[in-house]
Amino acid sequence: MKLYQSDRAPNPRRVRIFMAEKGLDLGNMEIINLDLVAGENLSADYRRKDPMCGVPTLELDDGTCISESVAISRYFEEIQPEPALMGRDAKSKAAIEMWNRRMELKLLLPVALAFRNISRAFADREKCSKEFGEISLERATKMFTFLDQHLANNDYIAGDDFSIADITALCAVDFARVVKLRIGEDQPHLKRWHDAVSARDSAKA
Amino acid sequence: MKLYQSDRAPNPRRVRIFMAEKGLDLGNMEIINLDLVAGENLSADYRRKDPMCGVPTLELDDGTCISESVAISRYFEEIQPEPALMGRDAKSKAAIEMWNRRMELKLLLPVALAFRNISRAFADREKCSKEFGEISLERATKMFTFLDQHLANNDYIAGDDFSIADITALCAVDFARVVKLRIGEDQPHLKRWHDAVSARDSAKA
Repeated sequence: MKLYQSDRAPNPRRVRIFMAEKGLDLGNMEIINLDLVAGENLSADYRRKDPMCGVPTLELDDGTCISESVAISRYFEEIQPEPALMGRDAKSKAAIEMWNRRMELKLLLPVALAFRNISRAFADREKCSKEFGEISLERATKMFTFLDQHLANNDYIAGDDFSIADITALCAVDFARVVKLRIGEDQPHLKRWHDAVSARDSAKA
Repeated sequence: MKLYQSDRAPNPRRVRIFMAEKGLDLGNMEIINLDLVAGENLSADYRRKDPMCGVPTLELDDGTCISESVAISRYFEEIQPEPALMGRDAKSKAAIEMWNRRMELKLLLPVALAFRNISRAFADREKCSKEFGEISLERATKMFTFLDQHLANNDYIAGDDFSIADITALCAVDFARVVKLRIGEDQPHLKRWHDAVSARDSAKA
């Protein structure tokens, strides 16, 4: 298997942490690092692997290419079910998927939109709107507040157990530093959770 | 079970079509229609069911609330596996998840962002950026072009079989009419696919 990825982007980190939690060794894969700022993900060769030009992409030995962090995570969950990170029965699978999506759509996405539209890091290949970047930053900031309240009553994002939703949230919260958004002194529950998930071996992946 | 939904919004339609494909009868559920323009989804009562105030939400008989269309679909896929709409093995599950996410993040999301930011339909509760609405509309338009090429070589969005990715794409393409984006005369493959999926009984759900 090959993994096309970037060390600095949040989405490849989600997959690296997911694999580490599964005990899957990155050392057993061929890792191909793409320089996103230089546009290595826009080459004709990579476009054949992922026409959306995102990272990461997992290339299986038969040449099948799987893009999208959660789709790659799903593949690993299927081939290595333990420890379960996406639920064990209909209700827990649905609840974890719900929370993971909230972390993606209401936290990681606004952080990414704030970064891309304010920093204009990819303005050579996409139109930017500083106005919408600022709106997105406000939304991400409000989500920190929501999460602090949510984590007052929950050990982890989706409830009692560590799951893929914590991985997405951790990567989003850490990546938010690029738009100067950090956990506030008045957010002790978010801080307690962040300290706990950051202390896991997988967080270094 | 109860389903909180809206007839006009694209996300509840995704769940209604998914259920119809599974042969699950909406008539066996209590349907609660929420008027989104009037803000019925913002009430304190509904906020306890879905703190993100989205639709649809599925409420199970034990009171558990599942929001997010794909999480609700996952629940139905688990309790009623046939016909499979989210894959049968690791590779097909991952491929369908990848394609469903592309349809969400690169098609339905830009269409929704174009609609919300250009029409200002929810300006009473969210900040809008016409500039980003126009950028989003351009992105959705490009995705129609991409899909036409993709469907020249694929019967369905994720390949040979109808899946949840087709449901998401159908709801996105149909909803795009709100921003005056329609399948072009020069997009025969997208039209062939759209005619085929629209002709299924489930499309009326």
